[in-house]
Amino acid sequence: MSDWDELAIEKDDALLATPFMVEMLRQMRAVDRYGIWDQAGDHEILDPFIMTSERKRCIPVVGDPDEDVLARVSAWYNGLAAAIERGGGRMAVPFIHLSHEGFGRALVTVGRLIVVDNTLRDVHRFGFRSLDAMVEEANNTVARAVQLITDHDDVASL
Amino acid sequence: MSDWDELAIEKDDALLATPFMVEMLRQMRAVDRYGIWDQAGDHEILDPFIMTSERKRCIPVVGDPDEDVLARVSAWYNGLAAAIERGGGRMAVPFIHLSHEGFGRALVTVGRLIVVDNTLRDVHRFGFRSLDAMVEEANNTVARAVQLITDHDDVASL
Repeated sequence: MSDWDELAIEKDDALLATPFMVEMLRQMRAVDRYGIWDQAGDHEILDPFIMTSERKRCIPVVGDPDEDVLARVSAWYNGLAAAIERGGGRMAVPFIHLSHEGFGRALVTVGRLIVVDNTLRDVHRFGFRSLDAMVEEANNTVARAVQLITDHDDVASL
Repeated sequence: MSDWDELAIEKDDALLATPFMVEMLRQMRAVDRYGIWDQAGDHEILDPFIMTSERKRCIPVVGDPDEDVLARVSAWYNGLAAAIERGGGRMAVPFIHLSHEGFGRALVTVGRLIVVDNTLRDVHRFGFRSLDAMVEEANNTVARAVQLITDHDDVASL
C-alpha cells in the first residue's frame, strides 16, 4: 500500500483555492464529527478523492464500499448541487441510491428537472485521476446542468 | 391484532381486475421468490396494502419499516412506473431513497423529467384507506405524470 503513503496533491496546489474545491472542503469538514481533520491541511483532506492508476491497483476489482468512500461520494454530489445552485439560481437537490455492492444511480434535481444523472458502479474505487481531472469533471458537469436549467426553466421551476 | 385477521378486500372486488391492480399483483408475485403466495387469492396478496384506521391503531407511531413493507413500497412505485410507461409511451424508472427510519423520497423519472416526486415518511405504516382509495391515488398520480410528459416532452425525451 506504499502508493497511499505519498500524497497525490501538493500542499500549495492553486486548484485547492477554486470555489468548487472550497465547497468540497466545506462538505468534508461538515461530516468530520470527531474533529479528525481539525489539524489536517486542505490537500490532505481531498487526497483520498484522487485515485491514480497506482492506487487503483491496490484496491480489489470487486468490493463493498465502506463508510469513508460513501461520505466522499455524498460530498461530491453535495458539492455539485451547491455549485449548480450558485450557477443556476435555483435550489438543487442531490439524490443517491446505492446497493450494498456499490452499484446505483446518483441524481441532482432542480424542480422537476434532472440536471445530473449518473450511473454508479464500483463505488469502492470512486475517485479521480488527478486534482485537475476532478476540477474539470466538476466544471463540465456544472456547466451542462446550468445549461439544462437555462434551456428548460419551465420544468426547473415546477 | 384482531383487525388483521379479517381481510379488508372482498374476494370478488371488481377493482382487482383493473389494469393497475393486475400490474400490482404481477409486481407482488414477482418478489415472491419462495412461492408463499402461490395458493393465495389476489385479494389476499393485496390486503396488506390496505391500512384502515383500525389497522393503523395496531401499529406504533414510530417504527422501522420491515422488509415486507419495503417490498410493498417498491411494488407500488414499480406499478406506477409501469402504468405511466403505458400511458405516456416513454420508459419510466422508479427511484426510492429511504433511511432506516422510514423517511425518504420516491421519484419516477422519464428521461430528465421527474413525473412523480413524493416525500416518504412513516413508511412502516404505508398503505391506503381502502382499495378504492388506492386505485384513485394511482389513477390521479398516473394522470398527472402523463400530463407532465405531454407538456414537457422535450425534457421527457432527453
